[in-house]
Amino acid sequence: MRREVEYGSPEQNEAVRAIVKAVKEQGDAALLAYTEKFDGMKLEAASLRVTQEELKAAYDAVEPSFVQAIAAAADNIRRFHVRQKRNSWMDLQPDGSLLGQIIRPLKRVGVYVPGGKAAYPSSVLMNVIPAQVAGVPEIVMVTPPATGGKAGIDPYILVAAAEAGVHEIYRAGGAQAIAALAYGTDTIAPVDKICGPGNIYVALAKREVYGAVDIDSIAGPSEIAVLADDSADPAYVAADLLSQAEHDEMASAILVTPSEAFAQACLAEIQRQLAELPRREIASAAVERYGAIILVDSIEDGIRAINRLAPEHFELIVENPMNYLGLIENAGAIFLGPYSSEPVGDYYAGPNHIIPTNGTARFSSPVDVDDFIKKSSLIYYSKEALLWNGATIMELARREGLEGHARAIEIRLNKEGKAGNQDGGKQ
Amino acid sequence: MRREVEYGSPEQNEAVRAIVKAVKEQGDAALLAYTEKFDGMKLEAASLRVTQEELKAAYDAVEPSFVQAIAAAADNIRRFHVRQKRNSWMDLQPDGSLLGQIIRPLKRVGVYVPGGKAAYPSSVLMNVIPAQVAGVPEIVMVTPPATGGKAGIDPYILVAAAEAGVHEIYRAGGAQAIAALAYGTDTIAPVDKICGPGNIYVALAKREVYGAVDIDSIAGPSEIAVLADDSADPAYVAADLLSQAEHDEMASAILVTPSEAFAQACLAEIQRQLAELPRREIASAAVERYGAIILVDSIEDGIRAINRLAPEHFELIVENPMNYLGLIENAGAIFLGPYSSEPVGDYYAGPNHIIPTNGTARFSSPVDVDDFIKKSSLIYYSKEALLWNGATIMELARREGLEGHARAIEIRLNKEGKAGNQDGGKQ
Repeated sequence: MRREVEYGSPEQNEAVRAIVKAVKEQGDAALLAYTEKFDGMKLEAASLRVTQEELKAAYDAVEPSFVQAIAAAADNIRRFHVRQKRNSWMDLQPDGSLLGQIIRPLKRVGVYVPGGKAAYPSSVLMNVIPAQVAGVPEIVMVTPPATGGKAGIDPYILVAAAEAGVHEIYRAGGAQAIAALAYGTDTIAPVDKICGPGNIYVALAKREVYGAVDIDSIAGPSEIAVLADDSADPAYVAADLLSQAEHDEMASAILVTPSEAFAQACLAEIQRQLAELPRREIASAAVERYGAIILVDSIEDGIRAINRLAPEHFELIVENPMNYLGLIENAGAIFLGPYSSEPVGDYYAGPNHIIPTNGTARFSSPVDVDDFIKKSSLIYYSKEALLWNGATIMELARREGLEGHARAIEIRLNKEGKAGNQDGGKQ
Repeated sequence: MRREVEYGSPEQNEAVRAIVKAVKEQGDAALLAYTEKFDGMKLEAASLRVTQEELKAAYDAVEPSFVQAIAAAADNIRRFHVRQKRNSWMDLQPDGSLLGQIIRPLKRVGVYVPGGKAAYPSSVLMNVIPAQVAGVPEIVMVTPPATGGKAGIDPYILVAAAEAGVHEIYRAGGAQAIAALAYGTDTIAPVDKICGPGNIYVALAKREVYGAVDIDSIAGPSEIAVLADDSADPAYVAADLLSQAEHDEMASAILVTPSEAFAQACLAEIQRQLAELPRREIASAAVERYGAIILVDSIEDGIRAINRLAPEHFELIVENPMNYLGLIENAGAIFLGPYSSEPVGDYYAGPNHIIPTNGTARFSSPVDVDDFIKKSSLIYYSKEALLWNGATIMELARREGLEGHARAIEIRLNKEGKAGNQDGGKQ
């Protein structure tokens, strides 16, 4: 079931390296030249940034119901992410020392939004709002201008960006936009982190600039696993499986059930619903290649299977699903009960829809506020603490052959007084 | 000042890929063959694991003062990291819905400890204790057996491992040990994450297995920046700068000061102390290549310079250092005042000594408990919530052209009752 991450062809890697190098060295000039070449749009540096007027026009261009819907989703997502915020903290010691962690937002974050059909307003919310809640003061969006000379960017994307809290929007896409975010140009100041999905050129460019800036992890195709028993409605389960299968021919949709009768009923529903689905070609391909029905002996057995899969999305539609929550070890997002259909989480409930794929839920987590903060350790050691513990520190340093470390302590002990604890550490 | 990350030669990359492939396919047989080839030690699978008797012998082989010192350091590190633990949480909605984040430890973590002179007991503590505090139930250490046929592993490393709370220790090193941790052998079960420092082969092997398991980030050479004014003792500052310079010829040691007199005094102290330092050749090379004294107009200006450097270690030795804490944006660990000598943090105070280098403190953080947990989102949507919000969710899905997503909601609305909120989201 594990699918390989795309690394790109040698030619694609070569092309991306050349683009990144050119933008790093020539800034706006290279960015504008590539925008003309790849997006078919001749811009000047002054017209890279989307204006307030253009944002207002976007609001006029979309249905009011869309604005209301995206604002409601943004509210929910914001409320969920606010709960993740943490404070800096201090641990005050009786000897006057102070230890702590300082938690700060990143200063400037870039969000990539693909052009064309891959531009999802919901992805804008899910990338931007955690950064906004973290307190990032400068959130920058880049997105390619529509090919063929149109001046605009999809107004739904612009409205989502405004509702999410983006501060600056630039007409730039592809590897050249990633390079501009990483190294900066006269028009676009460099960022500390780049996130958001993109095509293979964007993915390769992100890998190329990693180190100069942080990047998010590259998401694989979507996955859903449903564990359902006879209490579930096969039509609901089939619809949920297909909702992920329609994303991508590489998507995976897996049913785990202890009931053969349910499996049969669900299979029939999948076939019935698939025939009527607009994206049935994509969904069929996904179901055929990466779909599966796994019969298990019990719900507990089913959860063991889920833990091995570590799926991105996991729906548990059984009687009393809460009873099994403690057994679920590996799943990016857990949907409980018949009404927690996976699209509820994709768009609206509040948790992030950017979730680890390809089995990596074993060790990684959905995007959240933690992805947009950094921590600094804080050490304020009192004179008393140093005198008391200095000899122990010196012993450890000398054991590692690092005499310079020991002397940095010793020079203070010699000047300030003798150590209080020469025989090893216990205070 | 930014130094390039090592990527290894094509030959090294080729060698590592071959080793990883062999261990992945042949398990223990390949692991034992490489251990004989590279470590000069012929082992059987049954003798890979270090026994309880060998651990007891290690305690007998080291000074009691070392055991006391390492136990005291472990206590401090554990107390600091316990403060970072977070609970799973739930947000209960009035409509009966429940949203939350489940926070769990990783299940199995591998810690690499290099052999020979690079084996630091303090690094064992700093890698293992955060995992232990996170609640990781299986912490596995691998370390190469001493070359030349000796049966043992450095007893100081074994004692540090036991004090830190390692559960299993194996005699294995290099790329072959990394591959064994990632893919498992009959003797060594596979892990979810690998951390710990190593040589270029270990670093390349970690990159090679990334994806199958998580890995920590690769640390660059050590860095210290000190911002000091005339209130500081130049001898203390010089000693602290040299304590980092002695790590590595690539280490960086930078003094920032508004006082030319202090700069001169500190320079004289550096020269005096350097002459007497056992590792003076390494420290001199580091100081010459990556050392600097930066004169600034004020302490505030100095902090702006620090924020641009984003150093791994930052000492602020000025009058009333707390007054400036709010201005410090980018520094991995912050040491305040004359007694917070950097080795206090390397060995003993409690915060982790694995800290972002090479300017990456702009966007990353010292190792802590968060590096050994994973989060799952939890969504339990009530029927009432789905009926109320369903139409809004469908609107967002259809806007993105994902009809299957909309239908997963619609099929429920049609069966369970009509939506209560057809005009867009505000509850």
